[in-house]
Amino acid sequence: MNKFLHFVKSHIIAVSVLFIALSAAAFGGTGFLRAQSAAETTAGFSDNALLADYRRVEVASVSDALEQLTGRRMYMSHRMHPLFTTKFAGFARTVLLKKDEGNSDPAALNGMLEAIDQGSTDSVYVMVVEDGENIAGMGGLMGTAMAARGYAGAVIDGGVRDVAYLRKIGFPVYATGIVPSTSVHHYRFAGSQMPVTCDGVTVNAGDIVAADSDGVVVVPRSKAQEVLTLAQQMDFKEHSMYAVIEQTKSILEAVKKFGRL
Amino acid sequence: MNKFLHFVKSHIIAVSVLFIALSAAAFGGTGFLRAQSAAETTAGFSDNALLADYRRVEVASVSDALEQLTGRRMYMSHRMHPLFTTKFAGFARTVLLKKDEGNSDPAALNGMLEAIDQGSTDSVYVMVVEDGENIAGMGGLMGTAMAARGYAGAVIDGGVRDVAYLRKIGFPVYATGIVPSTSVHHYRFAGSQMPVTCDGVTVNAGDIVAADSDGVVVVPRSKAQEVLTLAQQMDFKEHSMYAVIEQTKSILEAVKKFGRL
Amino acid sequence: MNKFLHFVKSHIIAVSVLFIALSAAAFGGTGFLRAQSAAETTAGFSDNALLADYRRVEVASVSDALEQLTGRRMYMSHRMHPLFTTKFAGFARTVLLKKDEGNSDPAALNGMLEAIDQGSTDSVYVMVVEDGENIAGMGGLMGTAMAARGYAGAVIDGGVRDVAYLRKIGFPVYATGIVPSTSVHHYRFAGSQMPVTCDGVTVNAGDIVAADSDGVVVVPRSKAQEVLTLAQQMDFKEHSMYAVIEQTKSILEAVKKFGRL
Amino acid sequence: MNKFLHFVKSHIIAVSVLFIALSAAAFGGTGFLRAQSAAETTAGFSDNALLADYRRVEVASVSDALEQLTGRRMYMSHRMHPLFTTKFAGFARTVLLKKDEGNSDPAALNGMLEAIDQGSTDSVYVMVVEDGENIAGMGGLMGTAMAARGYAGAVIDGGVRDVAYLRKIGFPVYATGIVPSTSVHHYRFAGSQMPVTCDGVTVNAGDIVAADSDGVVVVPRSKAQEVLTLAQQMDFKEHSMYAVIEQTKSILEAVKKFGRL
Amino acid sequence: MNKFLHFVKSHIIAVSVLFIALSAAAFGGTGFLRAQSAAETTAGFSDNALLADYRRVEVASVSDALEQLTGRRMYMSHRMHPLFTTKFAGFARTVLLKKDEGNSDPAALNGMLEAIDQGSTDSVYVMVVEDGENIAGMGGLMGTAMAARGYAGAVIDGGVRDVAYLRKIGFPVYATGIVPSTSVHHYRFAGSQMPVTCDGVTVNAGDIVAADSDGVVVVPRSKAQEVLTLAQQMDFKEHSMYAVIEQTKSILEAVKKFGRL
Amino acid sequence: MNKFLHFVKSHIIAVSVLFIALSAAAFGGTGFLRAQSAAETTAGFSDNALLADYRRVEVASVSDALEQLTGRRMYMSHRMHPLFTTKFAGFARTVLLKKDEGNSDPAALNGMLEAIDQGSTDSVYVMVVEDGENIAGMGGLMGTAMAARGYAGAVIDGGVRDVAYLRKIGFPVYATGIVPSTSVHHYRFAGSQMPVTCDGVTVNAGDIVAADSDGVVVVPRSKAQEVLTLAQQMDFKEHSMYAVIEQTKSILEAVKKFGRL
Repeated sequence: MNKFLHFVKSHIIAVSVLFIALSAAAFGGTGFLRAQSAAETTAGFSDNALLADYRRVEVASVSDALEQLTGRRMYMSHRMHPLFTTKFAGFARTVLLKKDEGNSDPAALNGMLEAIDQGSTDSVYVMVVEDGENIAGMGGLMGTAMAARGYAGAVIDGGVRDVAYLRKIGFPVYATGIVPSTSVHHYRFAGSQMPVTCDGVTVNAGDIVAADSDGVVVVPRSKAQEVLTLAQQMDFKEHSMYAVIEQTKSILEAVKKFGRL
Repeated sequence: MNKFLHFVKSHIIAVSVLFIALSAAAFGGTGFLRAQSAAETTAGFSDNALLADYRRVEVASVSDALEQLTGRRMYMSHRMHPLFTTKFAGFARTVLLKKDEGNSDPAALNGMLEAIDQGSTDSVYVMVVEDGENIAGMGGLMGTAMAARGYAGAVIDGGVRDVAYLRKIGFPVYATGIVPSTSVHHYRFAGSQMPVTCDGVTVNAGDIVAADSDGVVVVPRSKAQEVLTLAQQMDFKEHSMYAVIEQTKSILEAVKKFGRL
Repeated sequence: MNKFLHFVKSHIIAVSVLFIALSAAAFGGTGFLRAQSAAETTAGFSDNALLADYRRVEVASVSDALEQLTGRRMYMSHRMHPLFTTKFAGFARTVLLKKDEGNSDPAALNGMLEAIDQGSTDSVYVMVVEDGENIAGMGGLMGTAMAARGYAGAVIDGGVRDVAYLRKIGFPVYATGIVPSTSVHHYRFAGSQMPVTCDGVTVNAGDIVAADSDGVVVVPRSKAQEVLTLAQQMDFKEHSMYAVIEQTKSILEAVKKFGRL
Repeated sequence: MNKFLHFVKSHIIAVSVLFIALSAAAFGGTGFLRAQSAAETTAGFSDNALLADYRRVEVASVSDALEQLTGRRMYMSHRMHPLFTTKFAGFARTVLLKKDEGNSDPAALNGMLEAIDQGSTDSVYVMVVEDGENIAGMGGLMGTAMAARGYAGAVIDGGVRDVAYLRKIGFPVYATGIVPSTSVHHYRFAGSQMPVTCDGVTVNAGDIVAADSDGVVVVPRSKAQEVLTLAQQMDFKEHSMYAVIEQTKSILEAVKKFGRL
Repeated sequence: MNKFLHFVKSHIIAVSVLFIALSAAAFGGTGFLRAQSAAETTAGFSDNALLADYRRVEVASVSDALEQLTGRRMYMSHRMHPLFTTKFAGFARTVLLKKDEGNSDPAALNGMLEAIDQGSTDSVYVMVVEDGENIAGMGGLMGTAMAARGYAGAVIDGGVRDVAYLRKIGFPVYATGIVPSTSVHHYRFAGSQMPVTCDGVTVNAGDIVAADSDGVVVVPRSKAQEVLTLAQQMDFKEHSMYAVIEQTKSILEAVKKFGRL
Repeated sequence: MNKFLHFVKSHIIAVSVLFIALSAAAFGGTGFLRAQSAAETTAGFSDNALLADYRRVEVASVSDALEQLTGRRMYMSHRMHPLFTTKFAGFARTVLLKKDEGNSDPAALNGMLEAIDQGSTDSVYVMVVEDGENIAGMGGLMGTAMAARGYAGAVIDGGVRDVAYLRKIGFPVYATGIVPSTSVHHYRFAGSQMPVTCDGVTVNAGDIVAADSDGVVVVPRSKAQEVLTLAQQMDFKEHSMYAVIEQTKSILEAVKKFGRL
């Protein structure tokens, strides 16, 4: 690299540092966060606005922000796959199914159906099917009901079926597998709107569930605004870094100056 | 929900019940099934007609029907993936490969090649590769032969390779993984047209193998007509329920009235 | 077809007729529509609920309902393509660009930018680029702003660029072509929130724009509830017919009995 | 290129020439074709076998063979697009719709429905919609009926709608556009099983219609066996040339030796 | 928007302005460009490096830079479609085919084959097929030869066939249509490495042809370094703007401050 | 099969045998390989030419050639998935990350960043993340740096995130899973350009890493030319066999005559 180019690059980095430093001062300081929290309390940020913002922030940034603020891993594993590329956020509506092999109780799953019928716009259906990798916890009928009620999506720790139909109506589902089977006669409803452990992550009713092409993350309701603000800053930094890395062709310099990977 | 709407919905449900009750009377009754079986015997439903119908019914319904009529799980697991979205049905042509690590017998797999060459239109190639997740049990050459002979598709409990070529010729394959390896020098032909256990499901030569975007199901030949009839009824019910759920936005009511999930 | 089967089919058709006739009585009558309109006025169906319902009804049914109620063609042509499979509905925010070849006015397009900044959740950006098939009327920057403001999507009678970025952020755009060019120095803002003729369809500010995999349709705001109700009935009929046609294998009988194609 | 490599390449080419020359002697000679035709007559090659072979030969080769044997262009234009990647062959079942704008005759399209109901396994529905680029000549209901009756696919000189549903059931359709509109009240049935001009190609009832990712070609029934045989030879030559070109990296030498492009 | 937020946003914008102003000073000034050109002459930037950089810059930015520096439209229209999503750059190797309907000259296209055989790594094949929308100017054999010789891709003002094979080998082609036909007996080679007008754009042998998901652009060789530098600056600005727009949710402010749309 | 057809087929097979036998004589003999190696030494085949050839040969053939020549399994398992269909080859640049849970060392991963910054055109980034299936070893920032430096691709024994961005810039990555998490604070750089065991395969710095739709294979640098030559012969044989199998419809005869499966 000739000297002139190096001179130019140094200046760019310097500008970047200044840029980010000022941004950090403006956005990242404790004072700002406190002020905003105050504003939030008085102004009453609605749930709608909160979800709208969660729909625009990256799941990876939400996961990082959660880890930084709470020290907890709140993302689902690589086993959780979407039926098609999607991006949604909503409030968790939880259901738990337990094995009850061979039962012939026609009402065994009624609690699940009631739980579905009680959800509405911005619900995300989160269901744990005990040992359910090869059992379709949901299919086209349940998906049609959720879509008709306005659910944002569904996350199943278990299988899914009728995937052609779910793709046809465009209802987004994450699940651990695709199988043609049924839970009827094999499972029993064990509760809804209770804490469940979905693919290793504790989900409480009303938690925010956000999903995009990187996976699924769960945000405790009480931390939602704080996590969002930090995640937005992380997105801003990361998106600013792309252009700088393209130009300098050095990730080391970029990370050093921006202070994050 | 206002009263009028509720009144309307009740009527719809009532009509649905009537509708389904009559359908059930017409289609589902023992008498009908017996009559149809009789008709089948005399009329001699051809294999072609049977497969044509299996190509149009959903694998999930076939799986449910099998379970209801036989109490057996006959579907393959979420490990079984298609190379591309497909839908086919045919008669199983089974092959078993056993490990014979390091063999240099050029004829070790000849039995497999012979088995392929004996199949024809409407065959589905079902091969079990012992511990074969990282061994390509089949590739482009075998797929070309099967396509040239008119096979409906292939189901491999093991890996597959040459997937770009298989997609190019549009030959549908389900397998448990994609790997660039070969079975040559590692495996030995251990029999064909014998019962095999493919991804946990017993497959006999001549069983019907049906596959769609929800997975793969195996139907014993002797049960094929009975299972088909029940699966068609299940499809009919399920497809009828979609419109009702969209309108009532309640899965609970729909399931109660239609009598199925 | 043997006699028994014919008997069964006749009964199914009869039941279908009864079913639909009663549905029609319940849903389709003038009295019902009037009652519902009254309910709407008093109950104050919100815009949110209206859009939520439009997001769940098929564009084809909306187009048919519009034609039946107003006698007008309100759908866009086959020239209008989505960047990816999508489904959305929102209120039109209209912009018109006129050719001004070679202008060097840096403010020539400012009105367009202002129009974008005034939109919000549930806006659909509708822009007509005069003779714009080979001019990218919008790209990644405009799409980022619309996504950040919560727009439902965009419909451009003209080209689009930065399609990889728009797919990355998942912002849905319909346009008549993909081109790498710019409107800067070639076009001038000619007004916003005015009636425009987009791909042959008149769009007024605030009209409902609904899009799915079949295309784009525009619903005058004053007709929105009426059209929605009829479109929902059409969806219900059509979705009910699928199961019946599968079973009877006759579209003629189905159409005769259900009274629609 | 060093001398040794050149020597090797020359030998490969020489072998190829020999190879192809012998193949041509075996397959391409007049004597062979005559012999085969005789065999066909006596052996009675069934329609099923003919279609099975057409499903395995490339549409491009069929088009070339047709042109060589008949001097006619029998392929459809680049305007004809599939809803999804597919490959099928079947016998044409033709329908013609003519404009009858604003008609309110409920029976205007009954002839079309009857024509659909008369088709069966291996039919390909070929419909011309006069000036129909922005009119959906077919949709989900008609596709469901065709699928239920076993049709191989459909080719519409006009639009198509309900494409999400058609993809869901996997029924392959070629059309000139996707639009949400209807032909009802705008068109009248003008005949079936008559010669139609579909996207510029004359199609007679019973002609073979073959489609793959390169498009659609129509083969007069009387030429079907002759065209097939030549197309298979063309496929064989072309597929043999791929490996040779990869190795020699010269298309000129390959074309000179194999005698075709 | 409350006052605090406004204060913060103002600062961010101010920083952005400073950031970009300095960048512009560093990169955009006449002095810098002149210095870099000098450096290029002495340092001898190789063709490889030039192409490597063109592979990483956006086609839309190249098109904008060309227009700004030369006042010419050098991008191809929306009629030009890729067979699959791709991104490449290389030096144009031009060929022209003219109609010669019904010729039976076996050497009519030999010049084209020779032209293909003379290309190598980093060639882009650019061929104009006179009135060729429904004629496949190239197919799998020509694509195999180009791939074997290392071509970056092909751009055909005309049709293409064997698209399944071209996708299988991953050779990127832009064309105006997919058709199963052939140019043999219909066209005659009319020259290579001469200026051609491809989809409205003049292409000279050795021009840089760059393609991505937004389309195809052609850069005269003499302008290549200058255009590249400006396009890289445009990319940098645009990519910097994404993060700012996400945060401020205003495209108007962003465009005013960054000085570009 | 009638006698005539059998006669024809026998001749084809005979020709094939002759064809292949001569090819083998020309290409496969020890003498030829030795001669070519000599040529290579003197002619000095560049790395560029080597990689260009590896980009055109099938990964499955490379894997088979490696196994035949070295007796070692050098392909990665079915756990390794690409973010999108791709094909690349380059020289391995290796990195190892070891668990260091909860570290707050801002320099813990600096070695990784330095390793990235030292790569260039034709590098393939190969990183092992200890127990890293649910940790994103790389994301958009690292991918942007690699793309800016010209890397051919990346192979991660661990997770990946920012997949929408990586798809947008078209940078090819193979990984064992998609997760939204980070390695920061959980891992520490443990070395680069050292031998690593990636998904069970030993990779040394500078080894050739080739990837296509069948997976990933690693070729020791010292064997690269020898393996390439054999893999090319395997490709040639396999590609020649496709046409023969299509015609004879027998894989057994083809395998017997060509001497390979």
